Amino acid sequence: MNPVITLTTDFGSKDSYAAQMKGVILAINPRAALVDVTHDIPPQNVRRAAAIVDEIAGVFPAGTIHLVVVDPGVGTDRDLVGVEMAGLRFVAPDNGVLSSVARRCPPGRIVRLSNRKFWRPDVSHTFHGRDIMAPVAAHWSLGLDLGEFGGADSRPLVALPESVARREGGRIAGEVLWADAFGNLITNIDESLLPAEHRPNVKVRLGGGLIHGVESCYAAREAGELVALIGSSGRLEIAVNQGSASRRLKMSGGEPIEIIGHAGVG
Amino acid sequence: MNPVITLTTDFGSKDSYAAQMKGVILAINPRAALVDVTHDIPPQNVRRAAAIVDEIAGVFPAGTIHLVVVDPGVGTDRDLVGVEMAGLRFVAPDNGVLSSVARRCPPGRIVRLSNRKFWRPDVSHTFHGRDIMAPVAAHWSLGLDLGEFGGADSRPLVALPESVARREGGRIAGEVLWADAFGNLITNIDESLLPAEHRPNVKVRLGGGLIHGVESCYAAREAGELVALIGSSGRLEIAVNQGSASRRLKMSGGEPIEIIGHAGVG
Amino acid sequence: MNPVITLTTDFGSKDSYAAQMKGVILAINPRAALVDVTHDIPPQNVRRAAAIVDEIAGVFPAGTIHLVVVDPGVGTDRDLVGVEMAGLRFVAPDNGVLSSVARRCPPGRIVRLSNRKFWRPDVSHTFHGRDIMAPVAAHWSLGLDLGEFGGADSRPLVALPESVARREGGRIAGEVLWADAFGNLITNIDESLLPAEHRPNVKVRLGGGLIHGVESCYAAREAGELVALIGSSGRLEIAVNQGSASRRLKMSGGEPIEIIGHAGVG
Repeated sequence: MNPVITLTTDFGSKDSYAAQMKGVILAINPRAALVDVTHDIPPQNVRRAAAIVDEIAGVFPAGTIHLVVVDPGVGTDRDLVGVEMAGLRFVAPDNGVLSSVARRCPPGRIVRLSNRKFWRPDVSHTFHGRDIMAPVAAHWSLGLDLGEFGGADSRPLVALPESVARREGGRIAGEVLWADAFGNLITNIDESLLPAEHRPNVKVRLGGGLIHGVESCYAAREAGELVALIGSSGRLEIAVNQGSASRRLKMSGGEPIEIIGHAGVG
Repeated sequence: MNPVITLTTDFGSKDSYAAQMKGVILAINPRAALVDVTHDIPPQNVRRAAAIVDEIAGVFPAGTIHLVVVDPGVGTDRDLVGVEMAGLRFVAPDNGVLSSVARRCPPGRIVRLSNRKFWRPDVSHTFHGRDIMAPVAAHWSLGLDLGEFGGADSRPLVALPESVARREGGRIAGEVLWADAFGNLITNIDESLLPAEHRPNVKVRLGGGLIHGVESCYAAREAGELVALIGSSGRLEIAVNQGSASRRLKMSGGEPIEIIGHAGVG
Repeated sequence: MNPVITLTTDFGSKDSYAAQMKGVILAINPRAALVDVTHDIPPQNVRRAAAIVDEIAGVFPAGTIHLVVVDPGVGTDRDLVGVEMAGLRFVAPDNGVLSSVARRCPPGRIVRLSNRKFWRPDVSHTFHGRDIMAPVAAHWSLGLDLGEFGGADSRPLVALPESVARREGGRIAGEVLWADAFGNLITNIDESLLPAEHRPNVKVRLGGGLIHGVESCYAAREAGELVALIGSSGRLEIAVNQGSASRRLKMSGGEPIEIIGHAGVG
């Protein structure tokens, strides 16, 4: 069985940085199956990377190693870690990039990467993805124990403040997290806050507009109309059927969103 | 032999959607070799996806499964299908996305995906690529028979109206289909309409300009000059040698193009 | 051990060209492990491709074949070559795309691709990447000797003029080569020109601005400040910590850069 290593970075697609990491991995473990998650995390956007990691970690086969290189603190004293929790494996800087997925897992094993034996001989000051994290992930995929790569300690991972929707009396106050490539607006309102029987009756207010009801698919409204629905990650999403809600509403993340109008809410 | 599964979607590269499909596939068949065709189909552009699928299906090894997820009708009653024709295999929504390749193949086996045994346990309303099509493709790649995934019936696949160049008297009236990343304008005029012996003498008219002769390569004209030629897919293409015809002519698809001026044409 | 074939092209990500090459390769060698280096070389920018190839060739495992298809001369009489030097393998047009890596390697074996036995039966005039280079790379990865693909001769590879930083009296005169996706400005000034003990004291002048000292990491300056440092490829880089030097300085390649102010320089 070839071990899978996924890559999530903010390197973009025009430079050689991601390929340099892949070469380093394959030189250590030529059997590794490499999967690009995305290299288009906005530069140094740890929060966005944390959300992406959380979306994908659960669907890959057991034993997959998720290598996450969004590392604005490269060259500072932030730690690099190898983490195993609930059967999921990660190699990343300890800067919050694992905080979304960690929130949903029981505490696992955290190892601070310190064993230089598994690093490249010449470690640059600006590209620890290539020189430390990639070789550690590759060696880990060969079957080594996580403990080989450094020392365990009892410090928890760095946690980013979570963007949580709040119930406030008869309303839910949330936030648009980002717009996806279709222009769908992904929010921080979890489906668990919206019991199915209430969905037809609530009102969703954002950017001065009002949407009646929460549907289950884009096509619940005519092409070109706004629709609120529960998206594929279990969160409230605002879309335009066959169009772009982001363009229509001029929103791309950070804007408030409110659910009102039904006693069942709150 | 590791089975190949290709992915063609409109998911873009900044979200986790394509990676979620890959994780689902690898969790079912860790030996699958995944190949990205493109994730940059313009959102919900079924016609463009149909052309891409037609361009690539023939070159991959026998047994390759082409997973095509451009699915504006997700959540409606459109069917999802598994198709085997002329040794080619596809998993896609039945929305026309296979119509270009189907036009060139003898009719094959069409199965409507209905056997929930091969789907993910919780099927979202908005991401059947991850929850139905990816797991079906993965199970198919394990060697199951297509018939396992649902029922065959005699309905043909949905066919998009074809963009066909027409001979009209002494001229050929065609259309620019799209501009590629080089700015080359790909047309719907097949090389079979332009016998080699006529190519030096015809005139190509588009956007108020006139190009004399159809060449065989970009470098037939000086750098910076417009050139008409038969491209690598066997269609008439308008290019600027070492430049962008799309920028020069301000065209990107949908514009008329005309071939005139030689008795042999028509 | 599955042989690795990397792909570096200017095909972009929205067309099927790269996927057509992958299909051709896998149809010949289904065990090939394909790695995308980048498909976003600026169209026909041989110089940029040469730099990318130089950055990645050394990190991949021995035996990796690097397929480089940036080929503005397709259809002209430029040669296609297979090259083996210092254990590195390349298939590319002989247009300078290998000149950066060749400059650092002892001369190797150069074969002009002429044996049509390994080409696709119908060779287009505009896509030798698919019709000649991909099948040659695939057959090479099966274990054939390079000599099978054509004739060796004593002509050297085409060499692009190198962009070299010059010492002039007490200064170093260099050039910004390009901006990476973070907006870091990569220059042609090699770290060997800047002995470590001089770095704290030199001044870097570009675009009317002046940076004091050459640091070792981005975080040596406050977020938002310009910093000069030795980057991960061993060249002087101008960055903005957690920002974009390219946007700040409105530079993206071709601009002069100067190092002054220390007797040790020069």
